[in-house]
Amino acid sequence: MVVRRGEPFLAVDWGTTNRRVYRIEHGAVAATERDDRGVTAVAAFAAEAAAIRDRFGDLPMLLAGMVGSNIGWQVAPYVAAPAGVADLAAKLHRVDDRTAIVPGVSTLAGGRPDVMRGEEVQLLGAVAAELVPGDSLLAQPGTHCKWAEMAGGRIAGFTTAMTGELFGLLRQHGLLAAQLQGAVSANAAYLDGVEEAKRRDLTASLFGIRAAKMLGTREDADAAAFASGLLIGSDVVARIESTTHDHIHILAGPELGALYAAAIEANGRAAHIVDSHAAFAAGIIAIGTALP
Amino acid sequence: MVVRRGEPFLAVDWGTTNRRVYRIEHGAVAATERDDRGVTAVAAFAAEAAAIRDRFGDLPMLLAGMVGSNIGWQVAPYVAAPAGVADLAAKLHRVDDRTAIVPGVSTLAGGRPDVMRGEEVQLLGAVAAELVPGDSLLAQPGTHCKWAEMAGGRIAGFTTAMTGELFGLLRQHGLLAAQLQGAVSANAAYLDGVEEAKRRDLTASLFGIRAAKMLGTREDADAAAFASGLLIGSDVVARIESTTHDHIHILAGPELGALYAAAIEANGRAAHIVDSHAAFAAGIIAIGTALP
Repeated sequence: MVVRRGEPFLAVDWGTTNRRVYRIEHGAVAATERDDRGVTAVAAFAAEAAAIRDRFGDLPMLLAGMVGSNIGWQVAPYVAAPAGVADLAAKLHRVDDRTAIVPGVSTLAGGRPDVMRGEEVQLLGAVAAELVPGDSLLAQPGTHCKWAEMAGGRIAGFTTAMTGELFGLLRQHGLLAAQLQGAVSANAAYLDGVEEAKRRDLTASLFGIRAAKMLGTREDADAAAFASGLLIGSDVVARIESTTHDHIHILAGPELGALYAAAIEANGRAAHIVDSHAAFAAGIIAIGTALP
Repeated sequence: MVVRRGEPFLAVDWGTTNRRVYRIEHGAVAATERDDRGVTAVAAFAAEAAAIRDRFGDLPMLLAGMVGSNIGWQVAPYVAAPAGVADLAAKLHRVDDRTAIVPGVSTLAGGRPDVMRGEEVQLLGAVAAELVPGDSLLAQPGTHCKWAEMAGGRIAGFTTAMTGELFGLLRQHGLLAAQLQGAVSANAAYLDGVEEAKRRDLTASLFGIRAAKMLGTREDADAAAFASGLLIGSDVVARIESTTHDHIHILAGPELGALYAAAIEANGRAAHIVDSHAAFAAGIIAIGTALP
């Protein structure tokens, strides 16, 4: 047993480039802190865990995210979807008596491989905290945007899109980079991009950003917002096609949340932004205390 | 008048990074040479033109490609599609009495801006040389793949896709780069990518390349071919949707031509590879001698 119901413990959402530590007391977050000690910045994980206990208390510890991958501390093998709180709790990877890693979730549905590590805690926590219904579609925007279909409170299936990473690549390298340095908000140019995405012809629509400059049909100041709308819109339109949910929940901060909400609403569905930190805390408490 | 029918002249296909010079005699290519003196490598265009005449003959000269853009010698404004040989010949940009630049072609059809510079010569030449029918769909693969709908021997409309550039970005930068160093050919992995492209969900299909590695469902040696099939297939499936042509002609060398042909055939259309150098020569002769 790692965590006893009702007793305090530490939780770490430990990603590739960042990390957030929570001290959980009486089923709620008593303290939290974010830093840039992601797994790629850490070599000695046992020493890092000891340092976390020095700062936050000498308590049992549950870790989630890339810390359980082959670039992390120890590999916690994926659990195949559908997966709920009990499934993940049953497959916690024990580092020692007081330290465990939550496994990621995998799917091969429809011959399409996909994986997540860390997002599963937020997804299950959103349901556990009743922030979203047990049957719902949740989006987790970011470098790699996750879309999870929840059924009966479990992760039934999911899809990851490289939306944020593609935007970053285009903004840093290649033909469009110089044009894409402007600000992004859910403005008219953004919504034009969302509309363009409905063609489902992304590589051609991207070249259209260049052509619009050559023909003078769009100011470069609007190009980044258009490109963001095009990429997020491409993600949304593909997901809308394969879901029956009229309401879509977004686990994100306010900025990215507003962009996804605008694209979802432009595609005729209602969007609701959910607090992703609250969801993580609820999820890690549920997994930590679900142990037999 | 720049070129008299039947008299020799020089033609230059002058792109961003490369250039090909042709000496045309009696309506045929008498000499040709390719070098890396693209417009980005050249500052003094008049001196370059003089050097070309020193090597190939003191003859009238027709230039095409990025040499007519705002990073080239002088700007030859776009001619709006539909555009044929006579339309371009009527709008040649005269640098001096013996030197002219072929204008590019633009479109705003369906609210979708697009431009080409240089490709128009190959397209019109392919028809002029009877390498393709006057009503046909032509693909010109490359960093930016052009697809042109020809009608009555003119360029009726066209679409550019950033297919090759996106592949290059993914291969050089970001999450997938390390996986995409393998060889690309029209093999089984390539055709799997073409099949995946039919989902029209490119950003998610790209993340699937990572997930396939994590779940061990595809060897990394096959990842580059799969990604190439996915990108080229995305391009093909979008173009197939909006054309009635059962036969598609590809202006390309044998390697890229074979990849596009395989993707086109996997989408139920017949593919025919056409010699792009022969098409350029025929096009520049047609434009050069169409002058009144």
